[in-house]
Amino acid sequence: MNSPYGKDLHQANSKAAATVTRPQRPRVVIVGAGFGGLSAAVALDGLAAEVTVIDRRNYHLFQPLLYQVATAGLAPSDIASPIRAILGRQKNASVLMGKVTGIDTAGRHVELGERRLPYDFLILATGARHAYFGHDEWERYAPGLKKIDDAIEIRRRILMAFERAETTEDERERRRLLTFAIVGAGPTGVEMAGAIAELARRALARDFRRIDPRAARVMLLEAGPRILSTFPDSLSQAAAENLAELGVETCLGQAVTHCDETGITLGAEHIEAATVIWAAGVMASPAAKWLAADCDSAGRVKVNADLSLPGHPEIFVIGDTASVQGADGRPLPGVAPVAKQQGRYLARRLRFLLGKGRDPGPFHYRSFGNLATIGRRAAIADFGRIRVTGFAAWLLWGVVHIYFLIGFRNRIAVALDWIWAYLTFQRGARLITGSGAED
Amino acid sequence: MNSPYGKDLHQANSKAAATVTRPQRPRVVIVGAGFGGLSAAVALDGLAAEVTVIDRRNYHLFQPLLYQVATAGLAPSDIASPIRAILGRQKNASVLMGKVTGIDTAGRHVELGERRLPYDFLILATGARHAYFGHDEWERYAPGLKKIDDAIEIRRRILMAFERAETTEDERERRRLLTFAIVGAGPTGVEMAGAIAELARRALARDFRRIDPRAARVMLLEAGPRILSTFPDSLSQAAAENLAELGVETCLGQAVTHCDETGITLGAEHIEAATVIWAAGVMASPAAKWLAADCDSAGRVKVNADLSLPGHPEIFVIGDTASVQGADGRPLPGVAPVAKQQGRYLARRLRFLLGKGRDPGPFHYRSFGNLATIGRRAAIADFGRIRVTGFAAWLLWGVVHIYFLIGFRNRIAVALDWIWAYLTFQRGARLITGSGAED
Repeated sequence: MNSPYGKDLHQANSKAAATVTRPQRPRVVIVGAGFGGLSAAVALDGLAAEVTVIDRRNYHLFQPLLYQVATAGLAPSDIASPIRAILGRQKNASVLMGKVTGIDTAGRHVELGERRLPYDFLILATGARHAYFGHDEWERYAPGLKKIDDAIEIRRRILMAFERAETTEDERERRRLLTFAIVGAGPTGVEMAGAIAELARRALARDFRRIDPRAARVMLLEAGPRILSTFPDSLSQAAAENLAELGVETCLGQAVTHCDETGITLGAEHIEAATVIWAAGVMASPAAKWLAADCDSAGRVKVNADLSLPGHPEIFVIGDTASVQGADGRPLPGVAPVAKQQGRYLARRLRFLLGKGRDPGPFHYRSFGNLATIGRRAAIADFGRIRVTGFAAWLLWGVVHIYFLIGFRNRIAVALDWIWAYLTFQRGARLITGSGAED
Repeated sequence: MNSPYGKDLHQANSKAAATVTRPQRPRVVIVGAGFGGLSAAVALDGLAAEVTVIDRRNYHLFQPLLYQVATAGLAPSDIASPIRAILGRQKNASVLMGKVTGIDTAGRHVELGERRLPYDFLILATGARHAYFGHDEWERYAPGLKKIDDAIEIRRRILMAFERAETTEDERERRRLLTFAIVGAGPTGVEMAGAIAELARRALARDFRRIDPRAARVMLLEAGPRILSTFPDSLSQAAAENLAELGVETCLGQAVTHCDETGITLGAEHIEAATVIWAAGVMASPAAKWLAADCDSAGRVKVNADLSLPGHPEIFVIGDTASVQGADGRPLPGVAPVAKQQGRYLARRLRFLLGKGRDPGPFHYRSFGNLATIGRRAAIADFGRIRVTGFAAWLLWGVVHIYFLIGFRNRIAVALDWIWAYLTFQRGARLITGSGAED
């Protein structure tokens, strides 16, 4: 195979020959330190290359547990690790905190405002944001959950709703303040609904004098015919029963038609709700726009079987930013295992392109199963033929999530928070902070 | 003694008699859920009274460890406990999250914007803010450390300074970014200086590629002749040596004359520093203004020997908001033990005024000693005749602080973070979040 790198290395060397004696090492630039980007960077350890990881934030976020920050169960730092600390001992890696503003594919450099960073290979792993189906004006009324700051804001809204309900004199306003609507019944929506219901019924139950937090109404709104539609029907049925036991009201088959400061409209019905949380749709980051690339309706870049951009064998797109077909012909889901496998695959692919190791062939995703949790004692797990529900699935969910957390300290901290919360029904991170929290 | 409550109870009863049959219980309103207010509330448990605790935030903050949040050692939720959870089981207590805007001493009610809350007894424990000696415009360049949001902002500034130093091409700017100036060498200033020095020399040491964080300059600026001036001379000498070992430069006897975006001016010398932290002075909360009361130069209300406001035996002022003379004739320091003892004293005093228990007489502060820590292996402890320095004092400091933290979970979490940090030299909460962290 004609490596795209070969030509460049030659050019770079002939240019640099006059001033630098050692041959320049290939520059691998990775944009995004989520599951995909970080897996690629770590798997490139030891390769004779200059690996640069760019991220807007200084930390890698363990997003599957972000809903627990939003519901006051975990502290932000429990599920975040500094990127520099993760890559601190990896000699060929450096980290750059900055915001990518564009990519010059002809000149082969990444643009960060005025600054330009040249690359020989580029890996784009910039993730996705929540999408409002053309109604971006809904975002202020119905925030989504992708970043730590999102989670802190949602936590603030949830806790403030109870505080305001305690002080208001208006009965209708109190009902509105104690109504929580979650839009979208994928794993995040189901987890949020279960966690809010438990927060109200357990952790806050005895802390108020004028309201009974247990009277809070938690509504899970889903336009499709069932919750957790990526799971088999029997598991999504089991999850629906768990949710009902927690007191969550599930409304199926009705799409949201309007959102404003009073609440949310489903078809013809307006639900007065002070707290609305958006877990309905995602839109890929602007990577496709940077590349002027062909993308699907969710903004995900269509890539070749080796995850490279058509016409650009030196550019790769992975994770939530890429549209890749699975073995069943359907696009791969936007979950951590897909991104991590793609990152590790790319490391093998780059090693091959640089003359080290075998050709890994095209990328294949191997699913080890799907998990979703519903509150503090139930979950569902789908391993193809084997399906687990209830407490056993919940224990499994806990073990898997702690196992995949990065860093010994975070593992212990989360395990401790969970054991404490399980035994006491309390939440460890009930803080109202951030903008608007004071004054 | 003529209880101020007697008259009011009588009036309230005669008014309420037509509609309510049970006698109205005395209303004790406590403003501020810091060490003073919360101690008073908890010590009033069981009394036949309606105790209302008002705070702008929903959590009680363990302020002595706030500097560790600011230096990425602890998560905010490790040192904060929801006020409602602390008082959840106390039947006579309720919690109101809101901002007091004034007090009508004649009408005996607290004003929260439009809302009015009547009281029979009022305890003001609203704490203090940092003061800039008439230069409030310095605050944006030199933030102080009183609230969790302050700590998150200072943490952001410290971590961002290293990030920016890594990317800048300008050598002078890099030096400015790696210069940290702490103004004021009281316990907070000394603890901040030690913690920043260790962050740079230990936790961040290997995480950057273009800068050496160990080259960071940490300066402790003090207008007085020595650091930790409330401690005996020999202990402040020991602390100065510990600071020097950590690489902190201490500048004594020079007052700050100017602050701007480039740095800080000491007399005639301008120090270019990207991060300036203010630990120099405090000013009491506006309680004196609300009361139109006589106060000292730091805004603290002058109170009687029973901590009541002159002319108002039903109003008490405690903690950093009050000016109380100690046995040595000097004002009591603004530290947690003073506020806690005052809060517990007031509970005894109120019981007496309500006909339960003995007259506790005037308030006397009993000092059990003073502690200050310098980095991860040294501290000083002053117990009058007994003075401890070095590692033994540091262990003592750790045990005392964990003991006084509220809540089993926080104690374990902090202990765990400290053991982990001690063994690995890492920091668990190196997150850049909040305003300006993204986009």
